[in-house]
Amino acid sequence: MPKISHNISIAGLNIDRESKIPLSRQLYEGIRMAILHKQIRPGQRLPSSRTLAEDIGLSRNIVLLAYEQLTLEGYLTGSVGNGSFVSADAYTSFTEFTSAKKKIITPESVNTEPERDFNPGYEVSDMYADRESIKAIVKPFQNPVPALDHFPYRNWAKCASKIFRSLEFLQLSYDDAQGYYPLREAIAAYLRINRALICEPEQIIITYGTQQALNLIASIIIKKGDQFWIEDPGYINAKLAFQHAGGNPCFVPVTKNGLDLDYAKQNYPNARLAFITPSHQFPLGGSFPIAKRLQLLDWAAKNRMWVIEDDYDSELRYAAKPIPSLQGMDRHKRVIYTGTFSKVLFPGLRIGYLVLPDEQTTKVFKQAKAFADRQNSITDQLILNDFMREGYHSTHLRKMRVLYKKRQDHLVELIRKHGEDIISAEKQGSGMHIIAWLRQDINDQEISTILNRSGVINLPLSLYSNKFKHPPALVLGYTAFNEQKNQEAVLKMMTVIKDYLKEK
Amino acid sequence: MPKISHNISIAGLNIDRESKIPLSRQLYEGIRMAILHKQIRPGQRLPSSRTLAEDIGLSRNIVLLAYEQLTLEGYLTGSVGNGSFVSADAYTSFTEFTSAKKKIITPESVNTEPERDFNPGYEVSDMYADRESIKAIVKPFQNPVPALDHFPYRNWAKCASKIFRSLEFLQLSYDDAQGYYPLREAIAAYLRINRALICEPEQIIITYGTQQALNLIASIIIKKGDQFWIEDPGYINAKLAFQHAGGNPCFVPVTKNGLDLDYAKQNYPNARLAFITPSHQFPLGGSFPIAKRLQLLDWAAKNRMWVIEDDYDSELRYAAKPIPSLQGMDRHKRVIYTGTFSKVLFPGLRIGYLVLPDEQTTKVFKQAKAFADRQNSITDQLILNDFMREGYHSTHLRKMRVLYKKRQDHLVELIRKHGEDIISAEKQGSGMHIIAWLRQDINDQEISTILNRSGVINLPLSLYSNKFKHPPALVLGYTAFNEQKNQEAVLKMMTVIKDYLKEK
Repeated sequence: MPKISHNISIAGLNIDRESKIPLSRQLYEGIRMAILHKQIRPGQRLPSSRTLAEDIGLSRNIVLLAYEQLTLEGYLTGSVGNGSFVSADAYTSFTEFTSAKKKIITPESVNTEPERDFNPGYEVSDMYADRESIKAIVKPFQNPVPALDHFPYRNWAKCASKIFRSLEFLQLSYDDAQGYYPLREAIAAYLRINRALICEPEQIIITYGTQQALNLIASIIIKKGDQFWIEDPGYINAKLAFQHAGGNPCFVPVTKNGLDLDYAKQNYPNARLAFITPSHQFPLGGSFPIAKRLQLLDWAAKNRMWVIEDDYDSELRYAAKPIPSLQGMDRHKRVIYTGTFSKVLFPGLRIGYLVLPDEQTTKVFKQAKAFADRQNSITDQLILNDFMREGYHSTHLRKMRVLYKKRQDHLVELIRKHGEDIISAEKQGSGMHIIAWLRQDINDQEISTILNRSGVINLPLSLYSNKFKHPPALVLGYTAFNEQKNQEAVLKMMTVIKDYLKEK
Repeated sequence: MPKISHNISIAGLNIDRESKIPLSRQLYEGIRMAILHKQIRPGQRLPSSRTLAEDIGLSRNIVLLAYEQLTLEGYLTGSVGNGSFVSADAYTSFTEFTSAKKKIITPESVNTEPERDFNPGYEVSDMYADRESIKAIVKPFQNPVPALDHFPYRNWAKCASKIFRSLEFLQLSYDDAQGYYPLREAIAAYLRINRALICEPEQIIITYGTQQALNLIASIIIKKGDQFWIEDPGYINAKLAFQHAGGNPCFVPVTKNGLDLDYAKQNYPNARLAFITPSHQFPLGGSFPIAKRLQLLDWAAKNRMWVIEDDYDSELRYAAKPIPSLQGMDRHKRVIYTGTFSKVLFPGLRIGYLVLPDEQTTKVFKQAKAFADRQNSITDQLILNDFMREGYHSTHLRKMRVLYKKRQDHLVELIRKHGEDIISAEKQGSGMHIIAWLRQDINDQEISTILNRSGVINLPLSLYSNKFKHPPALVLGYTAFNEQKNQEAVLKMMTVIKDYLKEK
């Protein structure tokens, strides 16, 4: 039984010393109503008679009298030594009471159905809000979920234990809205080394993940009607964040080398912002070439355009040579870089970061972060900082690169082996998902829905498309699943698709 | 020394196999530039020669050659067995390099000073963003800071340790955007018992504190130009949140019984939302009477007005009888209730909650929370859940009530004893601060600045005022400070004020 009610005091207990009704009767009635109103529930422990007496300023005898009466009537169980609990029977009365009450409380004087006129724009995030259904088990090919079966739980717990043992000596009050400074140092060092960023801890803002980072960018930079370049197909949440702030999406086609820069420059020369995933285009996987990067940065400088570099999964590269970041090449301070730990560690951690180009920009972002929620929660930052400084993070990253490459290779091989003329897939140089191309006559939205219903989790490529169409395909995450799960899911997928084709 | 660079690979190392330049020379040059560009820094450890060789696909001998050369030239220190580190001397070259570089990289083709046209509205939160200065020590009379010297560190660590030991079996991937269900259960039970709320876990949304809760309310409910009632003096952040969303503040005077309802109804009958701190008006401390509560709820129902009940510190009550919440009396589903754990536990925890009146409203808030940042971070929620279920939370709350009452009594007595005709204060029935009234001829803004500069932290009452003026006063937090600190600070405060009065 949960011990929540231990040492509680019951709000709303109304004892009137002037009244003619005996105090114990008033108390009895108050507690009885608290039970019937569901304030305290079956199995919950009441305060000891001594505690309650102190709390409401009555003698202990009066409380004992009330408890006795309630016990006699079956509302409470237990004895003086062991404490009093709300009895299981009280629940029955309660249920009857509320169903009766529901009828009574309908207000007569006002419309029964309250009017609700909420601001629009949030419905679209339902795919993120409705997580309950997939809470229990992560199933193939859910994306993006890291290999939680290989997370270094022991090392994480070791760092956590160190932090919680010394909590007393740490800063638990309000801290810098920009984030815990030593963690920012660790992230800056990590980004300089791994992603060739030019960055100092002073340029970093810790966020609750990429989603918040994008919202901060949108709220600070986008003005109503501003055009922004967005890859098509591309990251839905980025589009939504900038749209929500009043921005006007300019869809830019994607080639095998990522964003089609010439198209964007020609068609939307006045864009205020470009959102780009240069290391590994999401979802198609292309890498934006060096020459194009320089052109983009040059264009941004000349046209006062902001470049948002989302480097969400670039640490997870399987090709030999790391691709340095756009940010590291930017000499004109037009790039805002965003990254996350959700992909490499675990999504429930909710730690991401922004790298801003200069002091002035950082200041505004810091203010906006303080405005949004004051600061990130502190203990997660302390643990992550320790985890990075102990070298556990880079060790883990290195292991995941090997594991994910193996898992990807395996999935691609499985699809080659079993895919017949129906599905095909190619290896990707980085990331957490592959594109499984479908035969031209298959509708990817339709088959995706059927597959999800059969327990093979996926999203159709067309979901990420706006103006530009691509052949039908499915986006399949592979990082969280071992060979056996992959194999079962591929075979299941093939059976489901073949059945679908037969019925067509 | 931080071990961040352990097992790292250096992004941007450019090895050209076709080039006439020997591979080891290319590698040497690449690492040297990484040091000079500050990618890797003095004291950081380089990957072992074996690791680096694997990483970039060269033979180990080539890597050893490059490392040798770099060691010879003083860039690296260390030996084969112990690993190679960037040497302290490299730093000197680096500093020279960057100051030289700064001059070079100024772009010629574009304006040197980048234009920055950010959206306004965040500057005002500077008082929250600028936390660095007060990071190290919490000083009297900073508000609101709980008694971190009495936080049950051991119990919190015990719960944390339990969670981190079983992390492997918990849900670390994306979870319900509404918050961890068992924690919502615990909060619902807590609110029913302690605050007489009518609430189920399904109505609760876990947020990153009150600040985020207010922003969610603003973004969902406030439309451009909407009027909202706000207590004057009142909570600045609430005003800012609703203003930022386009709302029009209607300042309502505050009596000793809280918000002046008649004034509000008469002057602003069309308000769409009312923000109120009914249990303990912030900052003046009045309690909104039962009869007024019923009138407010009735008005809200008839005029389709939302009532935002901020119950930020009502658990910390020192009078005998708890005041039940507005929400618990609302039969028309017009109340949105918000509370926080930052006040009772610690501000760095960043966990607050919203209680919504019905399913439809909850759904929209859940979507907006998912849109903002997906969900709250998971481990803090797990720990808090355990802490509540073990009964530690209510025990702590109970202890803090006793302690805070003692600390408040002591501070008020000190002011009575030393305040002369200059400062006076009265006890408050709940909360974390008192109002120290100043002699009429003292300007509270002026003296507040002087006191803060002298290390006596406070905010002037007039800071919270808008349309309605009050006598000069200071808002003093007392919960975090023991008797000795209080005494020193009161004496200091008196000295500073007397000096100020002499110079006037």
